[in-house]
Amino acid sequence: MKLFELVGREKDNGFSPFAWRVKLALAHKGLDYETVPLHFTEIKETLEFADSKTVPVLVDGDNVIKDSWDICCYLEDTYQDGPSLFGDRDAARLFSFQIAGSLLAPLFRTIVADIFNVIDDKDVDHFRSTREPRIGCTIEEAAKDFEQSFSTFKAGLWPYNQFLKEVNFLCGDSPAFNDFVLYGMFLWARATSDKNLIENDDPLSAWLYRMDQQFDGLGGKVTKIK
Amino acid sequence: MKLFELVGREKDNGFSPFAWRVKLALAHKGLDYETVPLHFTEIKETLEFADSKTVPVLVDGDNVIKDSWDICCYLEDTYQDGPSLFGDRDAARLFSFQIAGSLLAPLFRTIVADIFNVIDDKDVDHFRSTREPRIGCTIEEAAKDFEQSFSTFKAGLWPYNQFLKEVNFLCGDSPAFNDFVLYGMFLWARATSDKNLIENDDPLSAWLYRMDQQFDGLGGKVTKIK
Repeated sequence: MKLFELVGREKDNGFSPFAWRVKLALAHKGLDYETVPLHFTEIKETLEFADSKTVPVLVDGDNVIKDSWDICCYLEDTYQDGPSLFGDRDAARLFSFQIAGSLLAPLFRTIVADIFNVIDDKDVDHFRSTREPRIGCTIEEAAKDFEQSFSTFKAGLWPYNQFLKEVNFLCGDSPAFNDFVLYGMFLWARATSDKNLIENDDPLSAWLYRMDQQFDGLGGKVTKIK
Repeated sequence: MKLFELVGREKDNGFSPFAWRVKLALAHKGLDYETVPLHFTEIKETLEFADSKTVPVLVDGDNVIKDSWDICCYLEDTYQDGPSLFGDRDAARLFSFQIAGSLLAPLFRTIVADIFNVIDDKDVDHFRSTREPRIGCTIEEAAKDFEQSFSTFKAGLWPYNQFLKEVNFLCGDSPAFNDFVLYGMFLWARATSDKNLIENDDPLSAWLYRMDQQFDGLGGKVTKIK
């Protein structure tokens, strides 16, 4: 299998939270794959064969699947011998929307300038021209006012800190898709930003430690792109 | 069964979103019950027998259960013949935290002055002295600045509008606990406020219509307290 994913200045440090969902799902299913690193400005042309304008894209033999949700559903349906990704698939779908709205959006504003600093030089103009309309201000303005979106992001962590007082993983006794969605977001930030997203005594901190141990430390090894 | 619930000026129009979860769960299970309406200032003394300072409290024969989550778990475990309340119980627990953080909190600030206007006269001082510390300002200040919390609330609806484009109910083909949590919030606002929380063409609007038809129109009959 081949997984096309987004990278910045380090080709072996893909940071897209959506690609992370797929990489964690592949590890969960015990499947081998190689990654194809792409810079922002390489995506459009390279992924034309998949009719996709975004990463990740998975190629599995003759099957070409785009969109992280569809890829995870494909993996769940095709590789039924591995452990299940979903308890309830509808609930997992809703969960991914909840994370997008309450956490990914404010976190993107919070770290957009940090991401800008770790992307490849050739992506700089493209990133600015596509991302500034999305955040409604310049990257520099977002950097200056990051405290507001950071505070929204932190408030959005409250439900997970509450829940993780009672349970080891979002999916119960062992991690699955919902954990990968939330963990992928933290890995995105870990590879791109020095900002400390959680406090040491947060239940999320202990969960993050547990997630870092999964799959031979797959996510635990991630460091910030230099 | 007896359900102790909170009321304002109309004794047959209980508006607590947490009591609504239980009433919808009881209807889902096809169980009969009577409600015991309580004003804010009656709760402490009346519910001493249950060691509870909050509604709802359910009395089922010799069993006394407090806290809407524990009551729903009790109903699920005790009345297994009725349809199930939960797909995945852990996921439902997390869902209730997500709704509390992203929607109930900003909605409370948005409609706190409207709630203040429909509670019983004898509750007025109690409500002010307990709720103002919670919102960090006076009720009148919250009323004046409601647009900000209203906008946070509306942004928090995004995941549900996205998801309900694809599915009829949060729990799939038919409603269950997660739907009751979200619907209970809308019924709370319907009984206490004139504010229009959603747009007619939102997927949530069609879902709300479907929820209003459930259980012989149990929630659909709710009108604003006069």
